[in-house]
Amino acid sequence: MDRNGLQRTFGIVVRGVREQRQLSQEELADLAGLHRTYISLLERGQRNPSLDVMSRIAAALDTTPSAILLAVEKNGGKRS
Amino acid sequence: MDRNGLQRTFGIVVRGVREQRQLSQEELADLAGLHRTYISLLERGQRNPSLDVMSRIAAALDTTPSAILLAVEKNGGKRS
Repeated sequence: MDRNGLQRTFGIVVRGVREQRQLSQEELADLAGLHRTYISLLERGQRNPSLDVMSRIAAALDTTPSAILLAVEKNGGKRS
Repeated sequence: MDRNGLQRTFGIVVRGVREQRQLSQEELADLAGLHRTYISLLERGQRNPSLDVMSRIAAALDTTPSAILLAVEKNGGKRS
């Protein structure tokens, strides 16, 4: 998966978990200490999140960074 | 784990896997398309790597980003 494909899949996975949790983008942003605009761009695959951001988002979604990345890998395979 | 603890643990895990693979920092840098100085700072917990960088490093180490983060979480627990 190239960088853009990876970012897109990451965004799709985050959106899916957020919706499972019945959180709005704004609620997730507040819980993670990020801006709602950042969450919106991230979910559309337009951000390359850092380890720190992944950790904040995972904690806010009551999951772990590794679980999110495992779902990303299952939805798109390893970076080739 | 706070941000610095997370970065430190990430660096320790990457160094451990790199040494298992018997790669130098320079060899890992070349395989991942990164600078040796970046690898050095990362392994010392002084960089907050992006999804793209994690993916490059994981591919160079013949592993996955989720496996690296799982090891990070096991070595330090979730961000609190």
